Parts: sequence; structure tokens; C-alpha cells
Amino acid sequence: MTDEELRREPPAAPEPESEIYDDEGAVASEFLEKVEEAIESRDESYLKDTIGHLHESELGDLLEELENDQRQELVRLMGDAFDYTALTEVDEAIRMSIVDAMPNDKIAQALRELDSDDAVYILEDLDEEDRREVLEKLPFRERIRLRRSLDYPEETAGRRMQTEFVAVPPFWTVGQTIDYMREDEDLPESFAQIFVIDPAFKLLGAVDLDRILRAKRPEKIEDIMHETRHAIPAEMDQEEAAQIIEQYDLLSAAVVDSNDRLVGVLTVDDVIDIVQQEAEEDIRRLGGVGDEELSDKVLRTSRSRVPWLAVNLVTAFLAATVIELFDATIQQIVALAVLMPIVAGMGGNAGSQTMTVTVRALATRNLDFRNSARIIRRELGVGAINGVVFAVLIGTVAGLWFSSVDIGGIIACAMVVNMIVAALAGILIPLTLDRFGADPAVSSAVFVTAVTDVVGFFAFLGLATWWFGVH
Amino acid sequence: MTDEELRREPPAAPEPESEIYDDEGAVASEFLEKVEEAIESRDESYLKDTIGHLHESELGDLLEELENDQRQELVRLMGDAFDYTALTEVDEAIRMSIVDAMPNDKIAQALRELDSDDAVYILEDLDEEDRREVLEKLPFRERIRLRRSLDYPEETAGRRMQTEFVAVPPFWTVGQTIDYMREDEDLPESFAQIFVIDPAFKLLGAVDLDRILRAKRPEKIEDIMHETRHAIPAEMDQEEAAQIIEQYDLLSAAVVDSNDRLVGVLTVDDVIDIVQQEAEEDIRRLGGVGDEELSDKVLRTSRSRVPWLAVNLVTAFLAATVIELFDATIQQIVALAVLMPIVAGMGGNAGSQTMTVTVRALATRNLDFRNSARIIRRELGVGAINGVVFAVLIGTVAGLWFSSVDIGGIIACAMVVNMIVAALAGILIPLTLDRFGADPAVSSAVFVTAVTDVVGFFAFLGLATWWFGVH
Repeated sequence: MTDEELRREPPAAPEPESEIYDDEGAVASEFLEKVEEAIESRDESYLKDTIGHLHESELGDLLEELENDQRQELVRLMGDAFDYTALTEVDEAIRMSIVDAMPNDKIAQALRELDSDDAVYILEDLDEEDRREVLEKLPFRERIRLRRSLDYPEETAGRRMQTEFVAVPPFWTVGQTIDYMREDEDLPESFAQIFVIDPAFKLLGAVDLDRILRAKRPEKIEDIMHETRHAIPAEMDQEEAAQIIEQYDLLSAAVVDSNDRLVGVLTVDDVIDIVQQEAEEDIRRLGGVGDEELSDKVLRTSRSRVPWLAVNLVTAFLAATVIELFDATIQQIVALAVLMPIVAGMGGNAGSQTMTVTVRALATRNLDFRNSARIIRRELGVGAINGVVFAVLIGTVAGLWFSSVDIGGIIACAMVVNMIVAALAGILIPLTLDRFGADPAVSSAVFVTAVTDVVGFFAFLGLATWWFGVH
Repeated sequence: MTDEELRREPPAAPEPESEIYDDEGAVASEFLEKVEEAIESRDESYLKDTIGHLHESELGDLLEELENDQRQELVRLMGDAFDYTALTEVDEAIRMSIVDAMPNDKIAQALRELDSDDAVYILEDLDEEDRREVLEKLPFRERIRLRRSLDYPEETAGRRMQTEFVAVPPFWTVGQTIDYMREDEDLPESFAQIFVIDPAFKLLGAVDLDRILRAKRPEKIEDIMHETRHAIPAEMDQEEAAQIIEQYDLLSAAVVDSNDRLVGVLTVDDVIDIVQQEAEEDIRRLGGVGDEELSDKVLRTSRSRVPWLAVNLVTAFLAATVIELFDATIQQIVALAVLMPIVAGMGGNAGSQTMTVTVRALATRNLDFRNSARIIRRELGVGAINGVVFAVLIGTVAGLWFSSVDIGGIIACAMVVNMIVAALAGILIPLTLDRFGADPAVSSAVFVTAVTDVVGFFAFLGLATWWFGVH
């Protein structure tokens, strides 16, 4: 998504949107079938008329529903009518499968239609050689622009920025500026603010469009501009940049190089993508899956999930060795084997509750070492209260089940212990990981469950061994 | 965050931002202490100078770091210099504690400074009576506007919309429109597009500001406007509305009532908030925590976490009863008790991996019943492959540990079974919940772990009983 598309409503399509999507918001089957037939029967005119009018995101959704060969065929059939911006809306795997099927000069031709940030999106996936070849086929000015973006590392503001923007000198009048915008052909299709620069391209400030509209023609730009307090260094991490734009509700922010020279603009629609991307990452990490995509193949997926399972295997064996310490007791009282997963499991769930809250609080910067003491007290309280509540519950049920007050009492005590430990582990483990620069979302879960399993089994079985030992 | 604040850079504060936040992006301790001293010593001038210049979000972060009485004191001391927009940036609990400490006429006075959507934000938290009293203290026009928003249910576009907007008739010229914007005082502080309406306020279209800037004064609005294909019904759920604005990269979207009359505008900064809110919700639900906030009290928090723990307790007992079926076998071979948590645990983790991917795919609408077959095949493959991989691993280790080929073989088979079942559960359970209109994020985890526990224990212990039974 780009400033170029920003606020530009898609031209009214022959079929109303309602027919593109069904009530669930998924691509409507009827529409999908029509398209598949058209591809089958090489019905170029239908495709150009219908699909040529889709919004990039609608086309993207459509592409994701098609089979691989259908996609490539569709691109071939539509020729110039195909909106390559849609490639920024699909999984990387799908994007690559389409781009790989295109000759380099076709790619170069496609890129010329795109805004710089979309072009970069596609270029960065190409291998070194293809990328160079494609860049060489582009006009000098665009090549320089794209190279500039590509020089910045991935996931930085420089990579995501759009290099098309409107910049004027401070001594211009509102009138001059408006006339310039009326005449100049090379402006971005759409933009939210105008930047003010000195002859060396150093950023002086910015003016919002509505400010210009409400100013009189003779007014000087420097008199209505505001200093941009939030210029974003091109090397800044995209997440950090997004947080700034988001915190100050900017519609776009200037991106400057190490010499404070204006090199591009980061727009709010990119920010939405970034915000979602980052939230997505956290969810997947908490769930123990990497950056896999739905379109990934089986082998790639299973491989990406192995590490997490492997770590869990180790901790599982750790817990097993704890159990083995008490095998004699278990042999005497099998009830313990029956009940022990309950203690461990409940602790695990309580722990992951606390962990989830902690990880999010860290991610949203609502938690740091200053206020951690308060949160730790709170979680300890929660753990203690719920520990007692469920201890009574479980103790009673277990006691009745095996008609043994002792077992009921033992599991109750073990529960209280494990729930409190779970609360501590749930908050201290992410806090510590974060403190040492590790991403708490990735690794917290493993450690938390490891702790609750080990402590759960040890408390329950150990207590039982000691108790029935002295009896 | 509001259109009013939109793109308006905060006025340069006496101290540079760098001193407000530390390197971690948290409120800097030195700054916090200065403020606390100033509150302590009732140093109004310092507070007005420094805090009066903070951006709403900076003030919000500051408020969250202060103690409750400090907050109320700060608001009192600053008087009109306090930017009440900051109340939209803090936890509900904090917002309420501040508002509750204010007399109703003070609240009304504060609301007059705010944009309608921010005012609603605060009004909706007040109890019925206070709300009516506050509304009555507001000037007629604002009262009507706010009532209109409040009439729409929570979490709808109508609730979140801003009722200030610029609307002009289609027959106006660009010149007339610009002059109108120059003169009219009652315009929103800042806006991204102008709406075109008929005398009955029916929405005809919209014009982007840059389009107006580039048009000649005599041009007619109706000639440069575009039909708004994406007008949002005020009753629409805020998440749905956000998805539309996001999909089509709009900077703002018109909100219309049931008669297609323009009633407000939803801006992209609200969308960012909504997008984050929804992702946040999914994370918390997957982690088994409700909409609790970090500022919640212990009791409220523990209560909110009980339901999830209770459900898990039931499933835990279910698993326990499965184990009890085989207590005779366990008594014979305690190794089984030692190893059984490994089988169940690994299955649980594999299941939650698949579940995480599935829940997200459903949330982002990348998964529906049409393409579910493909995904199910994929997950089955992944489950089978990882099942075999870890079966071999665990089988070997367990076999060596208890120097018994039989046990090694039995746990290996059980692992394969449980990993495949985990994959199926991980995708079918969320899919089914979603199919029946339940939120898969909330309840999937419980069912998935229930399945993997039960199957894990049953497969392992059952297999062992049968095998050693026939031996």
C-alpha cells in the first residue's frame, strides 16, 4: 500500500464490490468461478474489464484464492491491465511465484508503474543478479531512488519509505506553491503534507494541506509551516518509526538521512501494515510458530516448527526425571499418578495467563522495571487467591474421588504452591528475558511451563512422599 | 486520538522529547521525579509550562506513571492548561479515577475543548445520571452531536466517528470552497478530505485536499469529486469499518446513517487504535485472559481469570480419569507414569502451534471452508512428519532410559498418533468454532489441549496395557 494509492478510491468496477466478496468477507465463490473460467477460456476482454478495475487489495485476495498456474496465466493474459501493486498484498511465496514467471524486462516495465516503496517490496525478494538486471532496465532517476531505498537494511524506515514527495523552499508563497502543484507532473498521485527544505535538501519543516488551503495566496510558506519534531532517521527500525507516527497521530512523516536531508516519506497506511505485522509476530511467537505463511509447503512448515518442539521435549524430559524421583511413592499410591497432571496443568495455565499479560505489557511499553514491583505484587496476589480457590475445589474433588483426606490435603497444598510459583514465573521470566535483550514473546512460554511442570510434580509428589513417609 | 489532533505536531516543548522518554521509550525517571516534586510543591507555573506543552500521548504516558492522588492533584493544579484529550490515552481505570474526582460542570467544560469522538470516549464511561447532567451543561449543538454518537451501540463506527467535518454542495466551485474554508471558524482543526452532500445531507461523494489544491478555482466540485464507494454505515462494527479503511488505504471514511445521510467521519488514526485493540484481544484470548488492564486491582483480575482456569480444571480431571483406567498397568510399570506427561505435553505444543496459525488465518480471513481442505492436508503432513521425527527421538531416549525396547516402541507409536491428532484438533476445532459463530481465539486452546491430553494418555497407556497384556 502506498501514498500513491492513498485516499484514491478505486474506480467504480463494473460489478459492485458486494459480488467480489461474500458475507464472510471472503472472495465470493461465484466470482472466483467466473474468473477461473475466463482464465481457462483465455477471455482477455472479460479479465481486463473486471479484474482491471479491482482495487489492489481485492486483486490480491483473488490471487491468493487461485492456483499457481492460474495466477501466472492471469498475469500473462491481462498484460498491462494487471495492477502489479497487488503483489504487495499477497504472501511472499505467491509474490515470488508470479515474479519468477516474468522475464526481467517485463518486471522492470511493471516496476515503472509502481510507487518506489511498492517497487522495493518486489525488488528486495529478487536474487542479487536479477535485481541488478532489472534496475539497469529502469530510467536513471527511478534507479537511483530505488537503489537508495535498497541500501537501507530490511525492516528500517528507509526500506519502507516512499521516495516521491512534494518539497518547496521556505520563501515561496502559498500561491507559488499551489501553482507549482497545479503544473508539476512529477508529483506523487496523492499526498497529505508538503515538506519545506533548504537548497541542500535539509528538512526545515512541513505544512499540512488544509493549512495551505486556509492560508491566503501571498502568505509565505515559512510563516505557516511547523517544524517537524518527528523526522524519522532512515536507519530507524520500522517498528520504532511506526510507534512515533502512531503516537503523534501523523498522516505521514519525513524520513531523513544521517545529514538530516529529506530522502523520503513514511505514510500512515504503511504504519497500519507494520502495526499488524508486529502484533502478528507476537501472537505467532507466543504460539511457538515462526514467520511461516499459509502458502508454505509441508516440509518448510514442519522444519520451522521443530525447534520449539525440541525445546519442549527437553523440558518434558526434565519434568519426567522429577517424577522418576518418586516412582516408589507412585507405585504405592497410583492415585498420585492420576492426579499429578492436574497440578502441573493448572499451574501451566495460570502461568501462561500471567505471561500473556506481561509480554503484552512489555510490548506496549506499559511495563518496565520501575512499575514492575507493583505488577509483581498484583500477580502474586492473583496467584495466591486463585491458588486457594482452586486448591479447595481440587482438594475436595480429589479427596472424595479417592476417599482420602490426606490426598485431598496434599493436592490442595501443592496447588497453592504451584499457582504462586506460576504467577512469579509468568512475570519474572518475561521481565528477565526482556532485560537481557531477548524477545520475551519467543521464549517465555517454554520456560514458564517448564517451571510449572517441575514445581507442580515436585510439590505434589514430594509432599505425598514426605507425608505418607512419616505416617 | 482524533482528527483534531491529526497531523498537528505538538508545539515545541521547553524540554526536548528526549528528556521525557528514556532510551527504552519509557517515561524518563528524572522527568517523572521533577513532575512529582512540582505536584508535591504545588508548582503550578512549572506544571503549566512543561506539561501544558506535552502531546496528549506524552501526557497520557506520564499519567500512567503517577499515583492516583498525584493524578487528581495534577489535574486540579493545571486547570485549563490540562489537555483532557490525554484521558483517551490511558487505561479506563485511570480515566475514571480522574473524571470521578471532577465536578460535573468541570467535566462539561473539559468536554467542550475536545473533539466529539474524544468527548464520547469520556462520556460513555460515566454513569447514566452524570452523563445526562454533563450533557445538559453543554451548548445545544454539541449536546445534539454527542447524543447522536452515544445513541449508537459501543464498538460501532457511529460511536467512534468524529461529528466535525467539512461538507459542501456539488455545485460550488473550487474557489468558493477554498474561501469557505478560509473564513469558516467552525471547521475541524484538521481534515484529510471534503465531503459533498445534497441539501438533505445525503452523501454524494468526496474530494481529497490535494485534488482541490491542484484544481483551478472556477472548476466545479462535482467535476473533481469521486463517489465514495466505501461509505461506512454508522451501525457497522468498528472492526469491520477499520478493515475497510485499511483495505482501501483511506485516510478517512464518511460515516452515514440508515438514510445515507452523512453523520460523521472515521479517521485512520482511530483505525490504528482499533487494529491494535483487536490484535490485543486475540492475543489475550489465546492466552486465556479477558480484557483486564494493568491498572486493575487484584480481586478484579483474579476473578476475570477464574473462568478459563475452571474450564481447564474440568478437562484436567477428564484426562485424570483416562489415566485411572490404566492404574493397574501403571502400578506394574511406573516408567509409564514417568513418561506419560511427555506424550501429552508434546501433543499439546504441536496442537497449539497449528491452532495459533489457524486462529490467525481465520482472523485475517486467509482461511475459509473453501481452502480449508488444502490447509488441513498440509497440517496433517506436518503432524505426521514431526510426529515421526520426535517419535524416533523420544523412543530412543525412553528405550535407553528404562533399557526396554518395548517401552521405547510404545511411546514412539503413541507420539505419532498424538501428533497427528494434535494437528487435526489444532485446525478442526477453531474452524468449527468459527463456523458456528464462536470466537475461535477464546475457546480453541482449552479444547485442543483437552484432546491432546486425553488422546496422549489413552494412546500411550492403552498401547502399553495391550502390549504388556499379551506378552
